[in-house]
Amino acid sequence: MQNVVILGGGFGGLYAAKALSGHAKVTLIDRRNFHLFQPLLYQVATGSLSPGEIAAPLRSLLRGYPDTFVLLEEAVGLDADNRRLLLTHEAPISYTHLIVATGSGNHYFGHNDWQAIAPGLKSIEDATAMRHKILYAFEAAEREADPAVRREWLTFVVVGAGPTGVELAGALAEIARDTLRRDFRHFRSEEAQILLLDGSSDVLPAYPPDLSEQAARLLIRLGVRPRTGVQVTAMDAEGLTLDTPDGDERLATRTVLWAAGVQPSAFGRVLAESAGAKLDRQGRVMVAPDLSIPGHPEIFVIGDLAFLEQDGKPLPGVAPVAMQQGRYVAAVIRAQSQGRTIAPFRYRNKGSLAVIGRAAGVADFGRLHFHGWPAWLLWLFVHLMYLAQFRNRVLVFIRWGFQYLSFDRGARLITGD
Amino acid sequence: MQNVVILGGGFGGLYAAKALSGHAKVTLIDRRNFHLFQPLLYQVATGSLSPGEIAAPLRSLLRGYPDTFVLLEEAVGLDADNRRLLLTHEAPISYTHLIVATGSGNHYFGHNDWQAIAPGLKSIEDATAMRHKILYAFEAAEREADPAVRREWLTFVVVGAGPTGVELAGALAEIARDTLRRDFRHFRSEEAQILLLDGSSDVLPAYPPDLSEQAARLLIRLGVRPRTGVQVTAMDAEGLTLDTPDGDERLATRTVLWAAGVQPSAFGRVLAESAGAKLDRQGRVMVAPDLSIPGHPEIFVIGDLAFLEQDGKPLPGVAPVAMQQGRYVAAVIRAQSQGRTIAPFRYRNKGSLAVIGRAAGVADFGRLHFHGWPAWLLWLFVHLMYLAQFRNRVLVFIRWGFQYLSFDRGARLITGD
Repeated sequence: MQNVVILGGGFGGLYAAKALSGHAKVTLIDRRNFHLFQPLLYQVATGSLSPGEIAAPLRSLLRGYPDTFVLLEEAVGLDADNRRLLLTHEAPISYTHLIVATGSGNHYFGHNDWQAIAPGLKSIEDATAMRHKILYAFEAAEREADPAVRREWLTFVVVGAGPTGVELAGALAEIARDTLRRDFRHFRSEEAQILLLDGSSDVLPAYPPDLSEQAARLLIRLGVRPRTGVQVTAMDAEGLTLDTPDGDERLATRTVLWAAGVQPSAFGRVLAESAGAKLDRQGRVMVAPDLSIPGHPEIFVIGDLAFLEQDGKPLPGVAPVAMQQGRYVAAVIRAQSQGRTIAPFRYRNKGSLAVIGRAAGVADFGRLHFHGWPAWLLWLFVHLMYLAQFRNRVLVFIRWGFQYLSFDRGARLITGD
Repeated sequence: MQNVVILGGGFGGLYAAKALSGHAKVTLIDRRNFHLFQPLLYQVATGSLSPGEIAAPLRSLLRGYPDTFVLLEEAVGLDADNRRLLLTHEAPISYTHLIVATGSGNHYFGHNDWQAIAPGLKSIEDATAMRHKILYAFEAAEREADPAVRREWLTFVVVGAGPTGVELAGALAEIARDTLRRDFRHFRSEEAQILLLDGSSDVLPAYPPDLSEQAARLLIRLGVRPRTGVQVTAMDAEGLTLDTPDGDERLATRTVLWAAGVQPSAFGRVLAESAGAKLDRQGRVMVAPDLSIPGHPEIFVIGDLAFLEQDGKPLPGVAPVAMQQGRYVAAVIRAQSQGRTIAPFRYRNKGSLAVIGRAAGVADFGRLHFHGWPAWLLWLFVHLMYLAQFRNRVLVFIRWGFQYLSFDRGARLITGD
């Protein structure tokens, strides 16, 4: 029987494990004991959901799948010639096939010191840190006597106007306008300013121009101020410096949230050194049309860590790509064992959705574009469908229902130091 | 108008604030922005509930209460002569009346180094640390090849057999027997041993003997091994030393959970130094029959930090005492402003409840004693009634319903390092 080791329990790794169950012995390795529904992380960061509602234990998710094993471990190296993966705690683990699905982290474009100032949004810890920062800013404003400093506490800057940045900015605007409206005595929470920055000329730059424009309009209606065509060049605890068409500009703020870029996982470099994989400029692994790495038909890379072009454009780092790649690689491995080959991987884009606050969003389905509440409703439906565990689906649905009716957010805890 | 400052947003502080609203200007100061429903912390520690489900923002809870203000601050000192409380960030705050309700923390009886080994259970951070420790132990057992070491990972020791210890041990037994039953491949989770230690001769020593005995019986039926009359004398990462009637004994375990004692908040010492308050041996503030401190009729101490005897016995450090004291102090302050005086504080004990796993518990209502499922049902009802926010009540109810039917626990995340 084939002995498949999967590194990473995100969308790619999980879907691969499920599709291989019953056909091979599968060992899924992750540093964490849970699968995280990353597209909803911003809702944890903005107090709508609790971490436990967008995460499910990997062991639970794979309980009904025969021949699957979960191991809480971290890979530190690869012995590709002997087909062994080196681990932190345990002896090396052997494989007949290796699927690397270690995803990506936050990317600060060489400014790693910004990480301490502007949290990103890739893990549960990131999300609770961001929640802390947002809620704490309002508390600090409440006890600040100096109006100028209070204004700094009430200025929120989101860097990066992709889907995550847009969703964050929209949620922030609602927190200020609705959720906290009656909570403070020394200022009106509506005074909060939310700025959404991007280096390109549009918000949602990967979307068609008409939807980018609709998104900008919906954001402005919520009270967000999008500022495109600006680059962050410096950052400290009391503000940031922007490179704008009109020259340098200083922006005084105590809260910067980072949604500007992702960095492929460091395991790409291990693959480069130990298996001769080629990396692109960002550090993604260039894969063959069957998602294996050249010279190693038994090693596959999927999800955010993989670089593959389709119709002349690189595939985006989104959950549907990872899921389809996970299933595809499972099919390749099953076909190999039967002496068959299958057609190269092809991503079937079922559409893109971004939500912009309450009952508003944009949806891109090729020729079909929606915006406003139909897009939001679709978003709601799709996300509830995909939420990994049935229990969570019901809880999240109820929480969203309450929030919609009450304008309140239930998970507004400032934890940690 | 009177200007009441309340220090601490637990049960005592929150109930005092609510009862004073509309009669005085009330400023509630807490280091945290939320009220925590501490009696259910063990359910977070054992993966049944998420932190957000047993906590609610103080600002939300006091939103409908006029003249109440919430301040995220920490008190560092007291200028009792000038009636001013000194804060970490802000200028000192003046008061006409001060209510100190800062509660208690974990107590390691002088062995502060044990804290790193055996987490206690007083805060959200404590609970997630404990959850980490418990779930990680099973993961470590899964990847451990040496059977002796695996046995150490599967040995769980709860120190202290009061209600918290009993509830923890019961939940641990259920995790091992039911929740994780099909999750691991290299051992059966039922092999886990759960030991419940106490220095006194009974579990639930504060309960009547017949209920202590019932509790021990229910625990044993769940697979918990109660060991009474033993003292922990040493502890390290690989086990602990017990002082037993038969001499010293070494217990090899990787997971020790602390439920053995609480330590009154350090603000007691501030009251002693700045306002001449007397402390008892444990550090609790000795209060007058109206819960003020002698010489300072304007300073009150309530909840776990207060020491008061009733019918020759000290009042226990439980939520109902704090709630009743909060309401009582509010009544004293209102009476003072009207020139009235009111009778000394008297705790009305409405009964004690402890739950021991699934559909089992003990209940002490003076002459009326229950055990088994009637006690559990009552516990369920009382806790759902008291859960501070309506939204949380519904969510918790649904989560418990699922758990009861599925034997599963939804919040089994290992977060942090």
